[in-house]
Amino acid sequence: MSAYARLEQRFARIATLNEAAAMLGWDAAAMMPPGGAAARGEQLAVLAGLSHELLTSPAMADDLAGTTPPGDPWQDRNLELMREAHQRATALPGELVEATSRANSRCETLWRGARETADFPAVRDALTQVFALAREAAGILGEVLGLSPYDALMAQYQRGVGSADVTPIFERYESFLQVSLPQAEALRRRRAHEALPPGPYPEAIQEGLCQRLSAVAGLDYHHARLDRSAHPFCGGTPQDVRITTRYDEDDPLSAITGVLHETGHALYERGLPGGYARQPVGEAAGMAVHESQSLIIEMQALRTDAYLGYLAPLMHATFGKPVTQGQLAQRLRHVRRSCIRVEADEMTYPAHVILRFRLEQALLSGDLAVGDLPGAWNDGMRRLLGVTPRDDAQGCLQDIHWYDGAIGYFPSYTLGAMAAAQLMAAARRALPELDRTLAQGDFSPLNGWLGTQIHAQGARLGFNELLMAATGERLNPAAFEAHLTERYLKFDF
Amino acid sequence: MSAYARLEQRFARIATLNEAAAMLGWDAAAMMPPGGAAARGEQLAVLAGLSHELLTSPAMADDLAGTTPPGDPWQDRNLELMREAHQRATALPGELVEATSRANSRCETLWRGARETADFPAVRDALTQVFALAREAAGILGEVLGLSPYDALMAQYQRGVGSADVTPIFERYESFLQVSLPQAEALRRRRAHEALPPGPYPEAIQEGLCQRLSAVAGLDYHHARLDRSAHPFCGGTPQDVRITTRYDEDDPLSAITGVLHETGHALYERGLPGGYARQPVGEAAGMAVHESQSLIIEMQALRTDAYLGYLAPLMHATFGKPVTQGQLAQRLRHVRRSCIRVEADEMTYPAHVILRFRLEQALLSGDLAVGDLPGAWNDGMRRLLGVTPRDDAQGCLQDIHWYDGAIGYFPSYTLGAMAAAQLMAAARRALPELDRTLAQGDFSPLNGWLGTQIHAQGARLGFNELLMAATGERLNPAAFEAHLTERYLKFDF
Repeated sequence: MSAYARLEQRFARIATLNEAAAMLGWDAAAMMPPGGAAARGEQLAVLAGLSHELLTSPAMADDLAGTTPPGDPWQDRNLELMREAHQRATALPGELVEATSRANSRCETLWRGARETADFPAVRDALTQVFALAREAAGILGEVLGLSPYDALMAQYQRGVGSADVTPIFERYESFLQVSLPQAEALRRRRAHEALPPGPYPEAIQEGLCQRLSAVAGLDYHHARLDRSAHPFCGGTPQDVRITTRYDEDDPLSAITGVLHETGHALYERGLPGGYARQPVGEAAGMAVHESQSLIIEMQALRTDAYLGYLAPLMHATFGKPVTQGQLAQRLRHVRRSCIRVEADEMTYPAHVILRFRLEQALLSGDLAVGDLPGAWNDGMRRLLGVTPRDDAQGCLQDIHWYDGAIGYFPSYTLGAMAAAQLMAAARRALPELDRTLAQGDFSPLNGWLGTQIHAQGARLGFNELLMAATGERLNPAAFEAHLTERYLKFDF
Repeated sequence: MSAYARLEQRFARIATLNEAAAMLGWDAAAMMPPGGAAARGEQLAVLAGLSHELLTSPAMADDLAGTTPPGDPWQDRNLELMREAHQRATALPGELVEATSRANSRCETLWRGARETADFPAVRDALTQVFALAREAAGILGEVLGLSPYDALMAQYQRGVGSADVTPIFERYESFLQVSLPQAEALRRRRAHEALPPGPYPEAIQEGLCQRLSAVAGLDYHHARLDRSAHPFCGGTPQDVRITTRYDEDDPLSAITGVLHETGHALYERGLPGGYARQPVGEAAGMAVHESQSLIIEMQALRTDAYLGYLAPLMHATFGKPVTQGQLAQRLRHVRRSCIRVEADEMTYPAHVILRFRLEQALLSGDLAVGDLPGAWNDGMRRLLGVTPRDDAQGCLQDIHWYDGAIGYFPSYTLGAMAAAQLMAAARRALPELDRTLAQGDFSPLNGWLGTQIHAQGARLGFNELLMAATGERLNPAAFEAHLTERYLKFDF
């Protein structure tokens, strides 16, 4: 057996172990009784430890050192990703990894209390420690990978795009927003108000409808489940994908949009290249690409007139309430400035991300002291959106990410939203029948195109290469701006 | 760190890995979409492989060789069980383990078809192979452990009891049955027939009642879940125990008795000694002891007049149907000869086990050729119970056990039933208030006594030692016979 073939076996074993961990992670969020938490933590720690041991074993290092690229583009890329995974896993001293894990865990715990009481000083020192350790790790990883420290962190979540790509795109969006947001708000004020019929929309009926909509959208429940959890997510494995949501009996659109968002993630996992299953090159291309796949369903396809024209009578029949397309359009296409990222509409959402992108770079480099974060946050919110958080719970304490050590993740949300618009525009060019099929709830032409262009590409290409191959250009925010202009600046309901 | 302390760490890691596998096993039966089966099989195989590697590693062997008994009875026993686990794992050549795994898997697959069509010849050769490989493994294990080949297999399921103990007990029971069964049947024929009110008993209401009954019986749902699966079982881990059942809308007693059976298993797991969690000595003492804990709830406590007097009005109120204590007693205390083990009542059930115990010994030794199994089976059924299977699907093809390689397991069912009766008699002596509390659905005095005598003992004692400590004698079938005599030969409804 060649060293490359042995490497494939080694990585398949690691991936299979990680699949086991993914299932246990889903269970912890969707099924586990609260008393199981401590034991589950230890189970996941043992799996992570074994996975790390397999990845950093001397035998693995020998095989990586002794293998030359096999000459096939997929296998060559696979080998490159194997080396990168091994480099990442071996680069950091064990003490740094452990100190980081402890510091993140401690900070996250303190953050839960601090957010509750809007008490930033209670978590300040812990967050300082998180950034100090992240700085050390980012420096080492950057050196090994030939990236800046911040880009080395970003690349953990999305390869092939860095701060130098993102900065001008975000600056351009800030300018776009300064002009467009007031216009969109003015248009919105001129609209008559059409509310959905009042609830209750019973949970069990919502659940049935959500399952049906996701199945019609292409999710094969022979390989999937829909369950409930406090925070909706997509977990599991490509052959057994688990999506979750939560239900609000007064607002069926919360679950419907959430389930279709997770369906987009799930379709990506389901469509990954089976011939490279459990190999690095067979995995998803990154979090920004993943987000583009959820948002192209949730924000692009779902909110078209075509699909809303399908959804409204279906909701009417399902709930026995006079839901209209106009009500859905008004609820699902609105702009409203807010201090809270997760409640933001698609036009203002990027402003929340831009703020965090800038601040996390300054915190990582040390240009901004953690103690100065609340002030810098509030200044940024005023400048970007003209709103001022009531307190730090509505401000710099609102997201778990930094407090849990996730630095460099935030840009993925907006890169994904922009990529979704660019992909949708390309899909429209390629599929003249797109709206006609969406008007029947049928995503199959769109899924077919995304399947070929994105899903089946696995991790063969980086973020911008993937967009180049699918749309003819690297990420270009023009498509997202055109989409927002079309939807929010010409809207005449 | 001492070699013993290192061993504790090594075994804790293995046990934690096995916990992960247990959760995935539960998921496969209770949650997994069918399309996840292949990936799940590989996940479980990787976990099993890693667990085996950790158990048989040179470092483990060194620590076992370099450790002397620490001098504490629990730790000494723990070390003994560690050595035994290591011996078992290292005794068998890898090729034999793999050949066994393949042969069992192949035979089980063929068996599913063969049972469907009552076609024993279709699986005969595969079963011959299963027994041939089991014979080879049993010989090696017996040599290493100082046991007969059959006892070496039995000990996989229950330590501390062997064929020499079981044979005279089963012979005695056969004699008891020849006299008592016709008497019980005669008494039963004299009874007026009282059927439960007709269904439907809605599933959701059954589920709520089952959860309530198990909670009242002592299961803490902070550390447990109740779900549905094709075959009821108790899985998970001591901190997160998962029980399952199935519902029949025409027959609520099927789920109620099933859930209380699994509750008995779950209470045992929950009550294992926390100070030895994830150590061999902290595990359950074996399958016969486990079965005694499920049966003391399901067959002993649940079917008392006291508990049925609690259950009948509760069912009446819950389902809005006039359920009476007399109906429950008649349904739950009956004798009826049948060819099918899993449908048997508690008096005839041991006959099914006795037949299998005798046949599997003869098949393992080679005294009985696999080709002669159907005839030997049918002869045995006629002699033990006076019934003749219609075909092999009702005969030697009915149980999965042998076809899946589980040889030496069957005696556990009847050893458990007999131990349950012996433990219940001792509990009655120790707890004069037992019936009064059961009349309120309250199992706490019984659970307290079982907790001390059985659950908290972990695997410190073997089967007979455990009974000796709890009841003052080794397994003595007299208590079971007395129980059956009281319930079926004096019954005067």
